[in-house]
Formats: sequence, C-alpha cells, structure tokens
Amino acid sequence: MKKVAVIMGSDSDMPTVSKAVDTLGGLGIPTEVHIYSAHRTPDEAAKFASDARANGFGAIIAAAGKAAHLAGALAARTTLPVIGLPIGGHMMGGLDALLSTVQMPAGIPVATVAVDGAVNAALLAAEILSVSDADIARALDEKRAKDTAAVLAKDAALAEKGE
Amino acid sequence: MKKVAVIMGSDSDMPTVSKAVDTLGGLGIPTEVHIYSAHRTPDEAAKFASDARANGFGAIIAAAGKAAHLAGALAARTTLPVIGLPIGGHMMGGLDALLSTVQMPAGIPVATVAVDGAVNAALLAAEILSVSDADIARALDEKRAKDTAAVLAKDAALAEKGE
Amino acid sequence: MKKVAVIMGSDSDMPTVSKAVDTLGGLGIPTEVHIYSAHRTPDEAAKFASDARANGFGAIIAAAGKAAHLAGALAARTTLPVIGLPIGGHMMGGLDALLSTVQMPAGIPVATVAVDGAVNAALLAAEILSVSDADIARALDEKRAKDTAAVLAKDAALAEKGE
Amino acid sequence: MKKVAVIMGSDSDMPTVSKAVDTLGGLGIPTEVHIYSAHRTPDEAAKFASDARANGFGAIIAAAGKAAHLAGALAARTTLPVIGLPIGGHMMGGLDALLSTVQMPAGIPVATVAVDGAVNAALLAAEILSVSDADIARALDEKRAKDTAAVLAKDAALAEKGE
Amino acid sequence: MKKVAVIMGSDSDMPTVSKAVDTLGGLGIPTEVHIYSAHRTPDEAAKFASDARANGFGAIIAAAGKAAHLAGALAARTTLPVIGLPIGGHMMGGLDALLSTVQMPAGIPVATVAVDGAVNAALLAAEILSVSDADIARALDEKRAKDTAAVLAKDAALAEKGE
Amino acid sequence: MKKVAVIMGSDSDMPTVSKAVDTLGGLGIPTEVHIYSAHRTPDEAAKFASDARANGFGAIIAAAGKAAHLAGALAARTTLPVIGLPIGGHMMGGLDALLSTVQMPAGIPVATVAVDGAVNAALLAAEILSVSDADIARALDEKRAKDTAAVLAKDAALAEKGE
Amino acid sequence: MKKVAVIMGSDSDMPTVSKAVDTLGGLGIPTEVHIYSAHRTPDEAAKFASDARANGFGAIIAAAGKAAHLAGALAARTTLPVIGLPIGGHMMGGLDALLSTVQMPAGIPVATVAVDGAVNAALLAAEILSVSDADIARALDEKRAKDTAAVLAKDAALAEKGE
Amino acid sequence: MKKVAVIMGSDSDMPTVSKAVDTLGGLGIPTEVHIYSAHRTPDEAAKFASDARANGFGAIIAAAGKAAHLAGALAARTTLPVIGLPIGGHMMGGLDALLSTVQMPAGIPVATVAVDGAVNAALLAAEILSVSDADIARALDEKRAKDTAAVLAKDAALAEKGE
Repeated sequence: MKKVAVIMGSDSDMPTVSKAVDTLGGLGIPTEVHIYSAHRTPDEAAKFASDARANGFGAIIAAAGKAAHLAGALAARTTLPVIGLPIGGHMMGGLDALLSTVQMPAGIPVATVAVDGAVNAALLAAEILSVSDADIARALDEKRAKDTAAVLAKDAALAEKGE
Repeated sequence: MKKVAVIMGSDSDMPTVSKAVDTLGGLGIPTEVHIYSAHRTPDEAAKFASDARANGFGAIIAAAGKAAHLAGALAARTTLPVIGLPIGGHMMGGLDALLSTVQMPAGIPVATVAVDGAVNAALLAAEILSVSDADIARALDEKRAKDTAAVLAKDAALAEKGE
Repeated sequence: MKKVAVIMGSDSDMPTVSKAVDTLGGLGIPTEVHIYSAHRTPDEAAKFASDARANGFGAIIAAAGKAAHLAGALAARTTLPVIGLPIGGHMMGGLDALLSTVQMPAGIPVATVAVDGAVNAALLAAEILSVSDADIARALDEKRAKDTAAVLAKDAALAEKGE
Repeated sequence: MKKVAVIMGSDSDMPTVSKAVDTLGGLGIPTEVHIYSAHRTPDEAAKFASDARANGFGAIIAAAGKAAHLAGALAARTTLPVIGLPIGGHMMGGLDALLSTVQMPAGIPVATVAVDGAVNAALLAAEILSVSDADIARALDEKRAKDTAAVLAKDAALAEKGE
Repeated sequence: MKKVAVIMGSDSDMPTVSKAVDTLGGLGIPTEVHIYSAHRTPDEAAKFASDARANGFGAIIAAAGKAAHLAGALAARTTLPVIGLPIGGHMMGGLDALLSTVQMPAGIPVATVAVDGAVNAALLAAEILSVSDADIARALDEKRAKDTAAVLAKDAALAEKGE
Repeated sequence: MKKVAVIMGSDSDMPTVSKAVDTLGGLGIPTEVHIYSAHRTPDEAAKFASDARANGFGAIIAAAGKAAHLAGALAARTTLPVIGLPIGGHMMGGLDALLSTVQMPAGIPVATVAVDGAVNAALLAAEILSVSDADIARALDEKRAKDTAAVLAKDAALAEKGE
Repeated sequence: MKKVAVIMGSDSDMPTVSKAVDTLGGLGIPTEVHIYSAHRTPDEAAKFASDARANGFGAIIAAAGKAAHLAGALAARTTLPVIGLPIGGHMMGGLDALLSTVQMPAGIPVATVAVDGAVNAALLAAEILSVSDADIARALDEKRAKDTAAVLAKDAALAEKGE
Repeated sequence: MKKVAVIMGSDSDMPTVSKAVDTLGGLGIPTEVHIYSAHRTPDEAAKFASDARANGFGAIIAAAGKAAHLAGALAARTTLPVIGLPIGGHMMGGLDALLSTVQMPAGIPVATVAVDGAVNAALLAAEILSVSDADIARALDEKRAKDTAAVLAKDAALAEKGE
C-alpha cells in the first residue's frame, strides 16, 4: 500500500497536524511524519519530495502558516499530489496562509483544504489512494456512512426532546 | 485507464474550463465534460457523483463561481477526490468562490486550486491518476521538465539581449 | 398557521440557533427544528426541503458555517423562502459563511441575514408569514413598539443620571 | 394579489434594478417602482414603508450601493419583509454595500441577496408571496423546471458536440 | 458655547462612547448624551438631528456598530457636521461598521474616525468648535503639547534605562 | 469668512480633487489648492498646516492614495479639522488608502470621507464652517433641499412613465 | 560598525519591539532605541531621520500600528534603508498597519516585514549591514545554520518517537 | 561596486520589473536580470541565491505574483537582503502576492515593497548599497531633492493658474 507523508513547517503546527495523522491511522494508512521547513531546511524538503514517489508515497500533506510556501516548495519537486493545509493564525483568520497555499502558478498544483482542515487533508489523501485501492475506498465509504448516521441520530434525539 | 470528469456549474464557465479539458487531452487522459448545477440540476449532479467511481472515473473537477457549492455537492456524494476550481468574478477577485469551495466542513474534503486555475485543476487530476499509473507519472514529469526548460530558455534569451 | 423550519448543519450551531427558536416561540409560531447537513445528509436535507411546502411550512431557516452550503442546498429543492443564517467563526469573522450563503446564482435566492443573526432570521420568517397572517403582523408590530420603548427608556434613564 | 415595491436609492441603480422589475413582470406580479433615497428623501422613504402593508404590498425590494442604508431605513418603518439588494461598485466588489445591507442589528431584519443579484431579489419577493398564493408558487415551480431543463439541454448539446 | 451631542445606537456601546464623553468634559465642552437607534427609534433620532442646530449644537457624534446607519441617518437630517464612530466587533475587526459609516453617497457627508476611536471623535468635535472658539483652540493646542511632552518623557526614560 | 485648503499628494489626484474644489466654489467658500506630498515635501506640508489657523483657514482637505499619510501628517501639525479624502486605486478598491487615512491613533483625528468622496469632503468642510457662519448653513440647507427635490422629480418622472 | 536605530510609535509597542532589540543584541550590533511618534513628535522623528546617516546609523527600524505612518515619515527624511514593522491589532489582524506601511508611493521605499515580525526586522537590518561587514555576514550565516539544525533535530526527535 | 540582481518569476512580469531595472540603471548601479521560477526552476533559483554574495551582489530583488514564493525561496538560500516585489493581479488587487511575500516566518526576512512598486524596489536596493557607498548615497539624495523640486514646481504652477 502507498504511504502518505505528513510534513509540517514547524513543530508549533503539531496540535493541528496530529488530527491528520490520527485520521490516517484510523483508516489504516501507513504514514510518515516530518518537520521540514521550506525556508530553514530547503534541501531536506526538496530531497524528500524528489524521492517521495520512488519511496512509495502516494500523497504528501504539507502544513504551514503565514506565507505558507511549504506545499508549493514540495510540489515543485514532485508530480505526486501535494495537499496544502494552511495553518490559521491572527492575520485575517489565516487568509495569508490560505492564499499563499492555494494561489499557485500554472504548472505546479497544490490541492488545498480549509484553514486548519487537518481531518480533510487526511481524508483527501485517503481518497487519492482509494482511486487504485478498493480497501481504502470501502473504508472511506464506511466512515462517510457513519458520519451520516451520526447526524441523523442527533436529529432524532432532537426530535425526541420535543424541541 | 481511469477517466476524469470535468463538471461546470454554468456554460459561462466554459472559457476557463476549456483550459482544463485541453490540458487533460494533452496528457492523453480520457475526459468527460458536463454542465450540471448544484442548484438547478441537483439530482443529476448527485447521480453523476454517486456513480462516478463505478463508471470508471478517478477524479472529478468541479468549476463554479460566486457561492460555489458544486464541488462540495459532488464531494458529498462520492469518496473519489473532487477538485474544486473557483471561477473568479468581481466580488473581491473571486474570494467568494474560493472561500465557498475550500472552507469545507470536516468529513467532505474538496481539493481546491487557485481562482481560475484550470490548468492546475487538470494537472492535479493527472497527478492523482499518476499514483497508480506510471505512464501518466512519466507524462507529468516530461511536462514539468519542458516547463523548466522553457523558463531557462527565456532566461538565456534575456542574458543574450544583454539586459 | 404555517410552520417555520429551523435547520442547522451541525449541533455545534445550537447555541446560536436556539435564539431563533426562542424568538419564533415567543411569537407563537409553530417551529420544527432539525439537524441536517448539506454534505453529510444530503438526501434527508433535500427531501425535507422538497416536501416542506406540502407539509405546511411557510419558511425555512438554514444555519451553517464555513463554506455554508446548507441554505443553498435547501433552496435548490423548494420555492419556499429560505433564510440563510451564516454562523461565524475565525475566518475573517464569518466572512466565509456570509459569502457562501449570500452570493447565490440567479434562480435560487437565499434571504441572508447577518453573521450569527439568529433573532433576525426568526423575525424575517415571522415577517414572511405576516404577509398573509394579520395576527403575526400585529405581534411583530407590538414587539417593534416594545423595542422602541426600551431604547427610549434607556435614553430617559441616561438623562436622569445627568450624564 | 399583494404587490411588490421596488425602491432604488438612485436612478443610477436602474440598469441593475430593471432586471428585478422584469422578473416580477414575467411572473405576473404587480410591481411599483420608486426612487427614494434613505439620505436625500428620508421622509418619503419612511412614509412609503410605513404605509406599505396598508397599501397592499407584500414585500419591498430596496436597492442601494456603498453605505447602503436604504433597506435598513425601510425595514425600520415596517414589519413587512424587506429585501436588500446591494449594488456593487469598485470598493472590494461591493463588499461595502453587502455589509451595510446584511449586518443589521437584532430586531430589524433585512433579507439580503447577492451583490447585484436583482433577479434573485425579485424571485425572493415572489417566493414570499407564494406562501399564501398558490398561483405564484406554481409559476415559480414552472420557472425552476424550465431553468433545470435549460441546463440539461446545454449539457446534452455538449455531449453531442462530442466534447 | 456650542454644545456637542453624543448619540449611541445601543447602550452596549457605552464603554467605548464614555471615552468620548470624558474627553469632551476634560476640554470643558458642554455635552449631551443620548441613546437613539437609527432603526428602533428613527423618529426620535431624526427629530434630534433636525433640531440640533437650533438647539445650540455644533457637532454630533454618532456611535454604532455592524451595519452602522446611525451617523448617516442623523446626517440626512442636518447640515451640522456629523462624526461617525464605528464600533468594532468580530466581523473583520469592525470593517462592517467602518464601511457602513464612511462610504456615504455624495451629498450627505459623515466625518468618520477609526473603529472604536472615541477619543478622536471627541477631539474632532472640539476641533470643529475651535474654528470659531479661540478658547477651545487653545485647550486643544495645550493638550497636543502635553501629548508631545509625554512621548518625549517616555523616550528620555528609555534612554536613561540605557536600553 | 474662513477659507478651506485643499491639499493633494500628487497632481494625479486632480481629477477627483477638482470635484471638491468645484463644490466649495459653488458654495461661495474661498479655497486654496496645493500639491504637497507628505513624503516628498514634508517641510512644506508641515509649514502649511502649522500656519493654517493663523492664515485664516477653517478646515483642510487632504487627498491621497495608497499608504495615504498626507491627512495624518497635516493633522499632526494643527488642531484645525483635517478632512481625509482617500483616493482609490486597484488595491482592494482603495482599502489601503481608506485604512491609512482613518485608523489614526488617539490624539490626532482625521475626519475621513468615502474613497474618492470629493464632493462630501467639500460639503463636510462647508458644514464645519457653517457652525459659526449662518450664510453657509443656509447655502447647505438650500443645496440639500435641491438634492431632495431632484430625487423626487426623478421618482415622479418614473411614475409618469408608468413603470 | 554602523548602528541600527529602533524607533517605536508608542511604548505600548515595546513587547513586540523588544524582540528586535534582543535579536540585534544577540548579533552584536550596536542599537539605539527611541519612542518617537509620527504624529505626536513629528519634529523629533524628522530630525532623528535626517541626521541618522551622519550619526553613524546604517538602518532604521520603525514599528507602528493602525494607520502606521512612522516608517514612511522617517523614510521621507533619509535615504538610509527604513524597515517598517507593522504592529498588529484587532482590525483584520493588522491589515491596516500592514497596508499603511507597505503601500508607499514611488520615491520613498519602506522595507516592510510581516505583521509583528520583530525578529525579521532585526535580521533584515543585520543583512543590510552585512553587505559591507563580513563579520555580520558570518554571524547571520551561523544563525541560519543553527536554525536549520534545530529543525532537523526536531525532525529526528519525531522519527525516534516513532510517530 | 556591489551589483543588484533582479529576478522575476515569469517573463509576464517584465513590464513592471523593467521599471526597477531602469531605475537602477539611472543610478549607475550594475544590474543583472534573470527569469527564475521558485517552482519551475527551483535549483537554478537556489543556486543563484546561494552564490550571490560571493558573486558580488549586494541585494536581490524578487518579483512574483499570486502565491509569490520567489522572494522567500531566494531568502532561504542567502543572508543578503532580499527585496520582495509583489506583482498585482485580479485577486483583491494583489493581496495574495503581498501576503505571500511579506508574511515570512521568523528567521528568513523579505524586505517587501508595495504591490507593483518596482521603482521603490530599485530605490530600496540602492539605499542598501548606499550604507557603504557614499556615491550612491549622494545620487539618492539628489534624486530625492529633484522629486521634491518637481512637486513644488507643480504646486507653483497651480498657484499661477489661479486655481
């Protein structure tokens, strides 16, 4: 099975990123986590991305805040799908990180999810693997059905309460 | 080979969307194009997405503007990767379409690209297929190398001009 | 008397939504509350909206945050008035939810109120019913007069305090 | 049948507003159009709104740009539904008009539609009347079905073109 | 001496507004404070503004938040200078109140100060009175000199600390 | 009679600024126009503001775009009312100029009008002079009445057209 | 060795500014700190900047919030590099300070760093001195290498933890 | 004399960038221009920056639009001052490029100028060289004096015209 890499630009992003790691773990997808900074460790980041396909990865999640260049820097070195996870902060609720991640020039796409959307970053990685892996597709469908059931259960509880 | 679906919310999005279709064609990836609106044809949009995996699709590109719900509406009906392509306009340069596409709730990811980033939407779809298709991976690497060479050629021409 | 439906996308919206429910209750308007998500329970949401007019509803309030598609998804399935209540958060103070709710394409209107404007969502629903219901019209006029009197009483108290 | 009032703050808003008037006309809804400014003719605006219910109106559409106070000024004088139509311009694509229209304080709702969303303002007015008028409900459903058919026809034409 | 009116749209604005009242008091300028809402007490607000010049006022400060119409509503009823004080909140740090206050249509100016800029609203009112009142001009110049001296004293203290 | 100064930061602002000059001329208010830049001619700008009260000015209008410091720089040198006129451009429709003009620190107010609101800048200056000049007050009231009549005439024409 | 001046507009900026002072101290660069306000002490600010080159300074850091004019006001008086450090606050996360600092007119550049980016303001000053000072260049390179090593150590620790 | 490098991410940036090149030429500063993309030619960009100090450069200007990573990518490879020139476009007037350029993480500063502020990028580079080069300092002072004289001449012409 392909692995998913989760790269964060700073260990201060860990509280958000760990939700992505947990989600991938819950789906049984092998995951490798790294702290690489686009600016402080550009060589290591570049090398990781360049080798990622050969090393058995199927997708890379890149989490970064502010002028979030990490996803783009990794995407510049691989044609594997790179998922950009903008980490929020005080500047207009993470708008700086969102725009820095998503507004990529033609040729180097980054698959961007919501600000602090770590769970969705993981699910998107799983969806990408699911294209050629029926087990993951099934796991995702089951999770989706459970999410649906959970909403309906809450709605039913609400009805019962007579509200 | 898996197919890529390109869905647009309105035929007025065609000038932008056609760049995605052309890019996919250039990579030899079979593509199916539809006009389905999240709001005017919700049933057809839902049915298409629900059946997409069984029908041989590996990724869905959804292009829409303003309160761009199309990508999210399709993503709600499939666990295939759905790529959101926000179509720009006058409201803050497409910020409404971008936020409506990317700020998805946990559970239903949309892989969002830049406002009007049609080429990148197509390349992202190809990258997703490339995870299990070495031919597409090779085609993407070749395109990347050509893009690099094109920039370097322009830089060399600049040097020659003595500027 | 027509009923008003109050639909929220997630039970985390309840603290805000409950103000709408209370306001409707205070006006004696029969209300039905549901948790339906545009993305996690699209079928239930669609069915509710499709049947709403036949089931005696006169307006639907839809509360959702982030890429708030719920109001639009319901509006796509009914020609009853759908009132969009954007739920705020950290992304630019709810601008994402506001734009996702209000910037609807031509053909599918959503009557949008302020971010977290739950009381106004309820009053707007009551105003809609008041077009053909003189009792509600009278109740709204009385509430308005009371609000006016409350402001004037505060102004008088201020004058008395000699400030 | 209840009438719909369409009020614009300036005759420069007419090109946008006329689409609302045409849409109401197409649905056979009697319409009255006025130019009243919240700031230049506050008395006339106030008087119109105060008398609107007694004069047989069921909804008021108020179109204004920039610091768009018109909808709020009318809403302050009636408990009929007031629909706010923000007119766009150069300031962040109409964000000033949108926020001035939608961010109303509790007690005085304005049913806001998209920036320059004149057709939807008209349809929303029609939807409000449809709550107690089965003919308008039917006309709206027919229009909706026609819109759906138009999208599907375009999609079919696309398929035929072999794109 | 001309008086200054300080009008707030809601008593929840008092913590901010009281800084304006205190500043005016410190300059010895007679001040009258009211709670009038553009929407809940439009008649009282209008009457106050219409009579303000005849009643001896030289400027009106109007404080309001969200879709802040109060300053504009007062300005529509008088040709005295009306100072708009936008009250901040969570929507993009008060951007809604700022735009609703400042973006007035031609013909009805509102002299807008910073979001929550209550001290400056008071000083601006004093500056307006100072045009024809040498005592106030002198008091303002003295305050300005004191402010300058305070900054220089802090700078000197910093130098002394050897930092 | 007090004079009004109109200062612009660059002669490229003239097309907008000339509307302020014309409006002041139409009200019979003596006006002096200058091009002074806060950055390129800081000494001349400072000297003009420092001497303005002694030289018979009652208000200063300062027009500037981008990081619009002119109004603040003049306000730092006088306790006369300084009116800030933000000149729009491409950066978010003049938001940069608006925020740079209005968000002044406590102690140095700038009376800010809308982006490109040159007519209102002039009317605000006239209103300030009107506090102690009954002729200007009367002229402003007459202009206001004419504006009102013009709107009502347009409304009447509309009614006649039978629209 | 050239000195670096650190000027702040208000002593309330000290908690942020002190990080710049500490960073410069850590690099052994002589630093002089002042509180000068563009608006409250314009003469002192102007004089400092005018004399800065003659007084042995190589760069000036100017920290200010809101309508942050300080950096521009200093830059207007010197052709030394002026580094603008926007101090954040509640207005859209410091967007007002950022735009007021960076959007300078042609002729008067300000080298702007991130909102609250005090460390980078100091490092940029050091980089400027490093152009002609090999010791500072070496110190910066060492600091950079240490930063890189720190990231790699954290990544290695993560790997060890087996996450 | 140290050289200045001007790097642009795409030859479509040339119309803006050429103003920087011309300004540097006018000051007699040796300049080298390149087209290097952070994403399409990351190795060449990295190598250029790594060698820049040894190759006699004193500053690097980096021009890029959208998710403008170029300045940051270069800054990650050198401790020379890197000047970021955000290239504007349709997304909120270049806000995406501005935020991507300026909001750098601690450790890697980018000296950012206004959106499309090419002249100021060049002047800032010259100011940096001027710290250790008295000729450039003199040339900058002369240019500044000429700019001042030009404004004063325009002001005098205005006075003569009797406006």
